[in-house]
Amino acid sequence: MAAARALVAKGPCWLRRGPSVRLPARFCSRGPAGEGRPESEAPLTRTQQRDGIRNIVLSNPKKRNALSLAMLKSLQNDILHEAESNDLKVIVISAEGPVFSSGHDLKELTSEQGRDYHAEVFQTCSEVMMLIRNHPVPIIAMVNGLATAAGCQLVASCDIAVASDKASFATPGVNVGLFCSTPAVALGRAVPRKVALEMLFTGEPISAQDALLHGLLSKVVPEPQLQEETVRIATKIASLSRPVVSLGKATFYKQLPQDLKTAYCLTSQAMVDNLALRDGQEGITAFLQKRRPVWSHEPAR
Amino acid sequence: MAAARALVAKGPCWLRRGPSVRLPARFCSRGPAGEGRPESEAPLTRTQQRDGIRNIVLSNPKKRNALSLAMLKSLQNDILHEAESNDLKVIVISAEGPVFSSGHDLKELTSEQGRDYHAEVFQTCSEVMMLIRNHPVPIIAMVNGLATAAGCQLVASCDIAVASDKASFATPGVNVGLFCSTPAVALGRAVPRKVALEMLFTGEPISAQDALLHGLLSKVVPEPQLQEETVRIATKIASLSRPVVSLGKATFYKQLPQDLKTAYCLTSQAMVDNLALRDGQEGITAFLQKRRPVWSHEPAR
Amino acid sequence: MAAARALVAKGPCWLRRGPSVRLPARFCSRGPAGEGRPESEAPLTRTQQRDGIRNIVLSNPKKRNALSLAMLKSLQNDILHEAESNDLKVIVISAEGPVFSSGHDLKELTSEQGRDYHAEVFQTCSEVMMLIRNHPVPIIAMVNGLATAAGCQLVASCDIAVASDKASFATPGVNVGLFCSTPAVALGRAVPRKVALEMLFTGEPISAQDALLHGLLSKVVPEPQLQEETVRIATKIASLSRPVVSLGKATFYKQLPQDLKTAYCLTSQAMVDNLALRDGQEGITAFLQKRRPVWSHEPAR
Repeated sequence: MAAARALVAKGPCWLRRGPSVRLPARFCSRGPAGEGRPESEAPLTRTQQRDGIRNIVLSNPKKRNALSLAMLKSLQNDILHEAESNDLKVIVISAEGPVFSSGHDLKELTSEQGRDYHAEVFQTCSEVMMLIRNHPVPIIAMVNGLATAAGCQLVASCDIAVASDKASFATPGVNVGLFCSTPAVALGRAVPRKVALEMLFTGEPISAQDALLHGLLSKVVPEPQLQEETVRIATKIASLSRPVVSLGKATFYKQLPQDLKTAYCLTSQAMVDNLALRDGQEGITAFLQKRRPVWSHEPAR
Repeated sequence: MAAARALVAKGPCWLRRGPSVRLPARFCSRGPAGEGRPESEAPLTRTQQRDGIRNIVLSNPKKRNALSLAMLKSLQNDILHEAESNDLKVIVISAEGPVFSSGHDLKELTSEQGRDYHAEVFQTCSEVMMLIRNHPVPIIAMVNGLATAAGCQLVASCDIAVASDKASFATPGVNVGLFCSTPAVALGRAVPRKVALEMLFTGEPISAQDALLHGLLSKVVPEPQLQEETVRIATKIASLSRPVVSLGKATFYKQLPQDLKTAYCLTSQAMVDNLALRDGQEGITAFLQKRRPVWSHEPAR
Repeated sequence: MAAARALVAKGPCWLRRGPSVRLPARFCSRGPAGEGRPESEAPLTRTQQRDGIRNIVLSNPKKRNALSLAMLKSLQNDILHEAESNDLKVIVISAEGPVFSSGHDLKELTSEQGRDYHAEVFQTCSEVMMLIRNHPVPIIAMVNGLATAAGCQLVASCDIAVASDKASFATPGVNVGLFCSTPAVALGRAVPRKVALEMLFTGEPISAQDALLHGLLSKVVPEPQLQEETVRIATKIASLSRPVVSLGKATFYKQLPQDLKTAYCLTSQAMVDNLALRDGQEGITAFLQKRRPVWSHEPAR
């Protein structure tokens, strides 16, 4: 669990200094996730794990699966749970009901709660999004409805996103006077700038097909095939060597923002390291011997 | 106007130093925009403002709306004009005639004018493009014809671009021995590298549909609906809170080049600041009270 | 040849230091390319040059044009050959047989060869990919079959890529326990993150049409037109001024990772330099005189 906690982005805050700093000091350095887990009656998320696949379901459809602070912490805990276990190979995040998620709970963002509470909401949300990227296994969003604001951000933040043709996506914060600036971090890294800005400035939704066209989704299928297609992808990933996939995911995000030369040096080293893994040699040997590989999932020494 | 002038990128030049520096010293630090405004007879641009929407029309169709130095300065003045006024909510740039803009006026780029003049042309052009990004309100390009070279750059530089299916886009400088390197700054940030390079190396045009596919445009509509669709988007933006949209636009461009953690810290702060705006609370309160918000457009204190 | 060799990225290694550094010291600083060229009987590549167009054909179809160390060195030599000659205007890389390239030769990546050999393979491969970007003329991939792993990386690394509708693309390393981390450098810079990660995590191929949609290709044509369309593009580029195209290519890659202001300062200088080229003035003069330009191909003084 200590190792898993390290996945949550921490460290001193890098906010602008001076009289305009208004976020509380703890903004970028709070206690371990789950500390403040709400003791609500009904769980906000449901999880089930089988054959290496963990399904996390947002299950507060009456509130359109709003990403309230409690929901965010529940999601964070579910993602962090036994993250380092070899029994976990891939995570699928889906939702109950016709709305994938409507984003933040606006009732938590009134002046009554105040700046500190607002800051905690956005900090926790940002932590969940970064956790998805820093997590050792691939995380897939399975979307069958409307995903708006931070809900759209959650889809954009996953490694893979599969949606049905019934899904749609929007960042409508401008309508309620709250520009979707945090969702724009994930959205702006997924779709072309012009598409992101039209969504952000008008608040209007785009279809699943357009979301695929512009890079927000990995795949769109007819609604009846959504579950099947997602399970197919998850099962494929669960059949692979966990340390190989884990090294690959971490290396991908590490090299992406680098200049070409640095990126090639980083990844060349990763390839050599990968080949030195027990599963690296098992895979190649099995291929040359024309047999199926048997993975040990043994991590790097 | 002093505040508006600050929108123009200034400061010392960051060009390579040493014997190869050949741009005039004033390249990156000239006087205020409009100083050298030409006293030509016919205006090169026309503007009209109503209900928060400013329409700027390139109106030199005989010269294919070439972005001559005079045209660039006229456009710059029109964009800067009362930029800080709450009466301005959104800008639409369009053009008269079948050509949106053919780019620089080649007559201004012969050896007769000399290096200093050439440098002024490219500096002014770059300033206009950066002004669009730094401007407090969204700027929309409405394109109904051919946009080439710096004309294509202008479309790529706007926040949103709506085009008719009659529009097309090219960077044909190689045909006249002048590679479209400045247009490539905007083009290369809008479309995939392979698409940009084929356009730049061959000079061949792409259709509006392909431009949409690759991210150069936000939307393509049949020609008869171009005006209507653009007005619809502009009207929507004009109905929103100006300080909310303005904070959102500035934050979007600020976070985009940052690493994920920095981006989330910047934008989390922006969300907290947004909620502290009078319109931030008005929007949420109106939503919870199920009524339409009434914007004060009051800027941050 | 000395000048050409300078195109190969060199310099001290920027790998992480400490006990985990396991790449040989020579990793980022070996001798000149071609030194270790294999003395195999049959050539692994064929080249032909006419009218400024050099065709390089991967010609080891029995081994699915695997990018063995010998094949990589052969390709590197063919690309570097007389790179500075004015007779060379554009390079086209294609392949014999139904597979464009299957990527690295897995027989070279077993534990028998050991870390040093593995490191040399990935270093040489990375050098070829960076050479394509640093080369003074445009390099086009013409793809008529399956391109996987480092074969897909080669396509993604070219400036322009034309494919037939029979082509497909995959990064299936995970299946043999070797995550395609070096191919992901090129792939991750060509297509949206979600598309890249689904390809990398599942190993499944995408069609030429999807590759075009997502930015991996410049153009897709029916198989019978592949040669004709590629020749058309290459012939167009070969008809242009070499120093203009060369300056444009170098400037494009230089400005792309910069912030907007730096990018515009770099490119404004490049435009002024371009106009000072003999061909820069010839092109504009010819245009104004309504005649075809006659290029001198005279480099910058």
